[in-house]
Amino acid sequence: MNLDAMRATNRVFEEEVVAKGDFAALDRVYASDACILPPGAPMISGREAIRAYWKAAAAALQARALRLVTIEARQEGQAIIEIGRAEVDTTAGANALEIKYVVVWRQEGGLWRWQIDIWNANG
Amino acid sequence: MNLDAMRATNRVFEEEVVAKGDFAALDRVYASDACILPPGAPMISGREAIRAYWKAAAAALQARALRLVTIEARQEGQAIIEIGRAEVDTTAGANALEIKYVVVWRQEGGLWRWQIDIWNANG
Repeated sequence: MNLDAMRATNRVFEEEVVAKGDFAALDRVYASDACILPPGAPMISGREAIRAYWKAAAAALQARALRLVTIEARQEGQAIIEIGRAEVDTTAGANALEIKYVVVWRQEGGLWRWQIDIWNANG
Repeated sequence: MNLDAMRATNRVFEEEVVAKGDFAALDRVYASDACILPPGAPMISGREAIRAYWKAAAAALQARALRLVTIEARQEGQAIIEIGRAEVDTTAGANALEIKYVVVWRQEGGLWRWQIDIWNANG
């Protein structure tokens, strides 16, 4: 497996996308054919729509920082299937939001990227 | 792939678990090492805990019927990764609840079963 490569991609999401608000960096996180399945909205396909979603969601959540923690990951064929959790700091406080997720990863352009991304909140 | 085998398992969930309330039938739906990631609760592992979850959830939702529709499925290694949606009829009406999900399937005891099951509501 490629836990180091996964961590590097997750760090782009944590540091560049959420902490700095650089939504163009999402192109180094998601595969070109990615889709996301966010709570409260239908499935969203393609990088342009995914960028628009995260820009709006980050503003709505007032997310300040986010940490992604891999709980379990295994390789199957060309994919890695990951179960994880996200701890989100918002203007309401540290760890104000606890999220769990499943991400299906695939390799593209030398990076491991998120191809399917679904999550929900614990509470 | 094994779309017929998947459909047969999904039918057990639709007809025996949800429509008839036979929660023991969940043992023919979930793999022995399955986990579910439901909205509003932490991750739940193992069949006994999964049965208890669905028993409580079916009562809380007042689900009368449910239809599972596969949107996309692909085999990777020993797994099938499925994106789908569930249309749920409740006492509030037909299609009162629209759910989307990702299920990771594996073969066990001659059946294809749900090993990882995560979902959320569209609205």
